Amino acid sequence: MRKEIIRFKRPVSMISAASVVGKREHEGPFGDVFDEFDTTDSFDKDSWEKSEAEMQKRALTIALNKADMKEENIDGLFAGDLINQCTSSAYGLLDFDIPYFGLYGACSTAALSLFLASLAINAGMESCACVTSSHFCSAERQFRFPLEYGSQRTPTSQHTVTGAGAFILSSEGDGPYIVDGMGGISTDMGIKDANNMGAAMAPAAISTLTRYFEATGTKPQDYDKIITGDLGFEGHGIVIDLMLDKGYDMRDVYTDCGLFIYDREKQDMHAGASGCGCSAVMMASHFLEEMKKGILKNILFIGTGALLSPMAVQQGQNIPGIAHLVHIKSQI
Amino acid sequence: MRKEIIRFKRPVSMISAASVVGKREHEGPFGDVFDEFDTTDSFDKDSWEKSEAEMQKRALTIALNKADMKEENIDGLFAGDLINQCTSSAYGLLDFDIPYFGLYGACSTAALSLFLASLAINAGMESCACVTSSHFCSAERQFRFPLEYGSQRTPTSQHTVTGAGAFILSSEGDGPYIVDGMGGISTDMGIKDANNMGAAMAPAAISTLTRYFEATGTKPQDYDKIITGDLGFEGHGIVIDLMLDKGYDMRDVYTDCGLFIYDREKQDMHAGASGCGCSAVMMASHFLEEMKKGILKNILFIGTGALLSPMAVQQGQNIPGIAHLVHIKSQI
Repeated sequence: MRKEIIRFKRPVSMISAASVVGKREHEGPFGDVFDEFDTTDSFDKDSWEKSEAEMQKRALTIALNKADMKEENIDGLFAGDLINQCTSSAYGLLDFDIPYFGLYGACSTAALSLFLASLAINAGMESCACVTSSHFCSAERQFRFPLEYGSQRTPTSQHTVTGAGAFILSSEGDGPYIVDGMGGISTDMGIKDANNMGAAMAPAAISTLTRYFEATGTKPQDYDKIITGDLGFEGHGIVIDLMLDKGYDMRDVYTDCGLFIYDREKQDMHAGASGCGCSAVMMASHFLEEMKKGILKNILFIGTGALLSPMAVQQGQNIPGIAHLVHIKSQI
Repeated sequence: MRKEIIRFKRPVSMISAASVVGKREHEGPFGDVFDEFDTTDSFDKDSWEKSEAEMQKRALTIALNKADMKEENIDGLFAGDLINQCTSSAYGLLDFDIPYFGLYGACSTAALSLFLASLAINAGMESCACVTSSHFCSAERQFRFPLEYGSQRTPTSQHTVTGAGAFILSSEGDGPYIVDGMGGISTDMGIKDANNMGAAMAPAAISTLTRYFEATGTKPQDYDKIITGDLGFEGHGIVIDLMLDKGYDMRDVYTDCGLFIYDREKQDMHAGASGCGCSAVMMASHFLEEMKKGILKNILFIGTGALLSPMAVQQGQNIPGIAHLVHIKSQI
């Protein structure tokens, strides 16, 4: 039978992290916790794709500096984004002479990269870096319409976060530690609305959480916090309801990174935040800080992704979802 | 300093493999070694993207059958392709209830997936599957022009292989074995011609080979064969020449999967074959068979990828290359 959970025999310490965001993320309730921002969203580049790549570069540079490490100390670089052929990662990280492993996990990429890098460290690498980004303007052009069209967004649509998060993981260090992880199984619940990603991704989060609780014999209350990537208000509500149906009351401990990057009252962001960068910047700042301070000691982080492409949707295909999980403890 | 090479303490046995190809690949010199073909290239689907996804599904199904394994025996599925948001993998493998890890390594994906799955097995997974595909018709539409335009191709252009390759790796089994591997570092030599991928990818192959020989203290003649992914005639020649300049005479042992899938005399394929599927189907058939028979005992397989996107090229960016290496032995 399958080994559902991979428990890391070798400790994987999250020794540093960095976050770089755009204007609206900086203006949100957590604006002050991010390492760098640019109110023009351009990061001194002449196309949105190049701006997104630049965010990745800056995030990794800051994370390396915080860890007091150089390129040659890093054995592997796990990175991904939403842009066709993952070029934000490929071009953004091109200047770093580090073995590069490109990932595509849609908005689950931050958790996917943390899981795969933890596997790599347990297979013999010493230190790895993980980088993830999204950019509202490049994502809108690619997945919906160029901003210049002035299209109106639906109430269920989420706002793609302009942001990049980077993490340095190492076999040495004093935590927080990734102690185990579980890969997500793709789910397809027949959702076809590319403006309702929360609904497409929620079943994947439910699948992974249910598998995890069953395999470990734990329940939601065993964790200080359970954090999904970017389900937003739509998906968050679906998870609460359907998990209750399955006998898991998540209400006390469950939150989603898409709920609070923007101020729902003051910033008109519809169903909340989404995008690879959403969970990446929140984990790389606020949540990791809370773990270092001991406010959070034991969390589950579940990156959630919708594995669609515009062409697949045009061809009438459903939108599959996926959710990868890493279990993080402040001490081991 | 960096750990350049990851030596696998736990043996990673390639217990089965499968290849599914289109018409021209079946008509080529190795046509008979592939497990399945469809002379319509459609695989009973109504779009090229769906056809490509179907090839992945069939390849994994055959590989599982050959290994006498079911979905629940597989701990992780590492897959990727060239299509935007890797939908050939996401949709093609959706029916398999296996934890799914999406990769983007362009045409290096077969080697990338073998390397990452080997890391996963060394970190605690027992068995993993790797699947890679490309399809001439979906790739032309996305990267160049839809076939209906009847565009003429340049002499340096390669023909994207219509094919999918699948591998089952396990901690148990009697080989061939992946004994070590090395991640590629992205290279950018200023190539901007999207019709000359061989030239864009060759420097990456040279970078990886040179790093590998230096780190291991070996030379080309220590291996029965050194096989790159899909550099084609252009890239193959560049590797021979530039490696000679560096003091490594590769001529006796070096070949490239792009050279021989098609018959250069009878099939008008310009600079040879390319695409994720190129090295995937050749490794999953001919080369693995030769290893099982003991004709080849000790090989280096280097997947080569060009990390471009059409949009990056339109924005005037160079084309970065990457090359991941796995070292395979018939016995350990």
